[in-house]
Amino acid sequence: MDDDEYELVENAAGRLVPDVINGRKAIPFMGVNKYKPEGRKAAPFISTCIDYPADGNKVVSDLKTALKLCGLKDGMGISTHHHFRDGDILANMVFDTAAELDVKNLRWFPSAVFPCHEPIIKHLESGVVHNVEGSLNGPLGDYCSRGKMEGMGVLRSHGGRYRAIQDGDIHIDIAVLAAPTADAFGNGNGLYGPSACGPLSYTKADYQYADRVIVVTDNIVPFPCYPWDIVGNYVDYVVVMDNIGKPSKIVSGTTRITANPDKLRIAEMTARFLDDAGIMHDGFNFQAGAGGTSLAFVNFLGKMMKEKGIRARAMLGGTTEYMVNILEEGLGDYVLDGQSFDLDAIRSLRKNPNHVLFDIMQCYNFHSKGNTTFMMDAIVLGATEVDVNFNTNVVTHSDGRMLHGIGGWQNGLLAKCTIITIPSLRRDMPMIRDEVTTLVGPGELVDVVVTERGIAINPGRKDLIEATAESELPIRPIEEIKGEAENTCGKLASKAEHGDKVVAVVEWIDGTILDSIWEVKN
Amino acid sequence: MDDDEYELVENAAGRLVPDVINGRKAIPFMGVNKYKPEGRKAAPFISTCIDYPADGNKVVSDLKTALKLCGLKDGMGISTHHHFRDGDILANMVFDTAAELDVKNLRWFPSAVFPCHEPIIKHLESGVVHNVEGSLNGPLGDYCSRGKMEGMGVLRSHGGRYRAIQDGDIHIDIAVLAAPTADAFGNGNGLYGPSACGPLSYTKADYQYADRVIVVTDNIVPFPCYPWDIVGNYVDYVVVMDNIGKPSKIVSGTTRITANPDKLRIAEMTARFLDDAGIMHDGFNFQAGAGGTSLAFVNFLGKMMKEKGIRARAMLGGTTEYMVNILEEGLGDYVLDGQSFDLDAIRSLRKNPNHVLFDIMQCYNFHSKGNTTFMMDAIVLGATEVDVNFNTNVVTHSDGRMLHGIGGWQNGLLAKCTIITIPSLRRDMPMIRDEVTTLVGPGELVDVVVTERGIAINPGRKDLIEATAESELPIRPIEEIKGEAENTCGKLASKAEHGDKVVAVVEWIDGTILDSIWEVKN
Repeated sequence: MDDDEYELVENAAGRLVPDVINGRKAIPFMGVNKYKPEGRKAAPFISTCIDYPADGNKVVSDLKTALKLCGLKDGMGISTHHHFRDGDILANMVFDTAAELDVKNLRWFPSAVFPCHEPIIKHLESGVVHNVEGSLNGPLGDYCSRGKMEGMGVLRSHGGRYRAIQDGDIHIDIAVLAAPTADAFGNGNGLYGPSACGPLSYTKADYQYADRVIVVTDNIVPFPCYPWDIVGNYVDYVVVMDNIGKPSKIVSGTTRITANPDKLRIAEMTARFLDDAGIMHDGFNFQAGAGGTSLAFVNFLGKMMKEKGIRARAMLGGTTEYMVNILEEGLGDYVLDGQSFDLDAIRSLRKNPNHVLFDIMQCYNFHSKGNTTFMMDAIVLGATEVDVNFNTNVVTHSDGRMLHGIGGWQNGLLAKCTIITIPSLRRDMPMIRDEVTTLVGPGELVDVVVTERGIAINPGRKDLIEATAESELPIRPIEEIKGEAENTCGKLASKAEHGDKVVAVVEWIDGTILDSIWEVKN
Repeated sequence: MDDDEYELVENAAGRLVPDVINGRKAIPFMGVNKYKPEGRKAAPFISTCIDYPADGNKVVSDLKTALKLCGLKDGMGISTHHHFRDGDILANMVFDTAAELDVKNLRWFPSAVFPCHEPIIKHLESGVVHNVEGSLNGPLGDYCSRGKMEGMGVLRSHGGRYRAIQDGDIHIDIAVLAAPTADAFGNGNGLYGPSACGPLSYTKADYQYADRVIVVTDNIVPFPCYPWDIVGNYVDYVVVMDNIGKPSKIVSGTTRITANPDKLRIAEMTARFLDDAGIMHDGFNFQAGAGGTSLAFVNFLGKMMKEKGIRARAMLGGTTEYMVNILEEGLGDYVLDGQSFDLDAIRSLRKNPNHVLFDIMQCYNFHSKGNTTFMMDAIVLGATEVDVNFNTNVVTHSDGRMLHGIGGWQNGLLAKCTIITIPSLRRDMPMIRDEVTTLVGPGELVDVVVTERGIAINPGRKDLIEATAESELPIRPIEEIKGEAENTCGKLASKAEHGDKVVAVVEWIDGTILDSIWEVKN
């Protein structure tokens, strides 16, 4: 079968999804906690020390040499990570090198893409890169939305990506991993060196399951490079270059605190909700995503904890100065850090033993024996749209364009109380809708929606409704908030028309297909 | 084929070894760095969070319940670890429980056994346990040596055990892992709690590859139990009991510093050899095994480093107060700790970020992409016998009885300079022989033998011979040391007669069979 042939089938969420994706048979979403996997994990080939230098020195002269030694060839799966976020330069170099070597038809499995990856578009057009499977946004998201990409985009959460690699849904032939500090054996971390970018947690599935692994660094140190976020025993080659990325760009886009008064109000109400609902108690655990409102929430929450003398046990980030402040003020025992969103987080990781490098597998891999997100008393996440059934969208705008990364957003929905913060209007468009444009989070997992006009609690969470019965917060039915927003802007939230071609799919955390993203018209 | 049928074949070391071991086809040793594995690693079945409690609490009432929930049944492979060394109590409990449940024919895959495991003999006799694959010593070693065990013993190095599990040579159905501190999700470590015993590094292959994993603790803490030497995402059940082991017994047997003047002389000569050979230089890495002489060597080396102002980069242990002293005096950058041999090591692990929990896979798994032992400038190891070709024995006495653990001994032979410390005589018996009773370390990997009568350098190491040409140390041919010892005691080192039955085999680090251990006559 051709890679681009598929039939549409309706899944348990009532969404039409393709039955074949990039040549692989796909399983339509069956409902939350319905799909049970069978079979066994991917089994990497057995290596032997005989094939590696007896002095442990795996340094080769340059990236091109390393890629050639790895046997780079047409059709391979290549992975990179996004710990530099919009400051990544390595992915572009990899595909520029592939183009020089006249290699075609590569599948790129990034942990996420950013606007900095716009140069990949020329490689998509020339056929060097066949398609991208990974969180898409910015120019590449737009390119894919317009139906220009060969093959289909596959949007997987961070945990979903780990799962897909672990379960063998995708196979990485060569992983090319930027390491801000590394030794010649291939141990690496992101805590030290001129390009320090924080944890390298997204690299773990890659190096454990890829056939070949290249570590690229601009700060080589004598063995042992510790901590070893990348473990040298999985690494084939080490490349040293002058500069591997721009760490200043990890503070970008979604990781700045908001200055918008409505969003600040949302953030403050969210913190107060945790208090009123009894969730903010001594020893509670919480998690906050990226996004300006989430950051402001952490800031408000920290102030409230200090006022009330409440101490958290574990805080799970994407980590910023606001979470670090809570830790440093003695108001929390641990920060579990899968990704640093600012340089304060990196400084804290270096010096504070209770600020811990955290593994994506541990928090988010749904095909493991539990997720640490289960232990989070609350998580606060942003969204692009929510509907009256609490279904939520985080990847497309209401016009259908795929412009936002999916991140670990879906994985966070497993927390004990999932709170979505969202303005009721954006650019005069209502954000609470009858039906979301793209389904990314099933409504039964979304417990609370906080807008500047009030807070809606999912009717299924009677415990939360009871716990906040005496709250002075504006807790209202979601339909009422929707109606008020529509009255204000004078228009109903309506669904954009789209083309007939599926350009990408949204995977659910269990690997089933939750929704399709369609070619945009115009 | 019956489990106990085999033919003997001669391997590349000239040793007769069985072609079938416990029903599995065996590959005879082919020479150092000759056997290249094919195929893929073991692939554990895919789990799903659906099958685990949504609040992350995996605690069940007791060990029996946990074993039943894991589906314990006849013929299964059960693993335990030996971080408590002679203070382990859990393995006996597991098989007592299996006996209560009338389960038979279990295969026990311990990371090592100790005299405390003598009660397992009754389970071997009753058929609850079929056989033991793992480092054997003490009463169980003696029992096996006398040909009383069903099935064959398989002596694997620590790295060899990781490799065997990873490569699928052995399959663990249920791993039962003592964790001195744990949370209800199954994260665990050995640093805190009343039974703190140090790193739990031997558990990693077990929990990553076992079908079912039980964590047993006597110190349950709120999530997150950090550090997580055991990662809860691999754990099925948690059992809390009053006492899981006796940490005072980690200082036992081979882990006390020697007071014997000859051994002290050996230890001091070894340290001086490192200096004279130019191995002890700023930034050097070294490793020392257990054994009283090795410990004394570390003590001497530390003093010499201090006198000469030399600083080590990484020290790899089995860790004791002597290595900790070097770290604390600022004479070394890192201690990489796979196993703590005293309580000072545990205290240091808790407080010193440069005293690092180290993974057996990283230092020792020969079927990975290099071993960190490659980076060790020198390693110092004990032995029971050595021969004129530098072949070495560490598991049997000269009478053929299997009385010593194999530990990580074979894996350490990959260091840049491998030094064996051994007295030339023990109880008036010569320890340098024409041929070792049991081959555990191929002579081509043994660089230096240090006895109280002098130091022999392997003729293959011309670089070491040249480097020490001006040394005042008594560097002599090995045959000369052998002859002098034989003259002193008035007898030649002769080989003991043995029975015809292979009771156990010694695996080489690549999984091939290096030698047989025979039923003892007497």
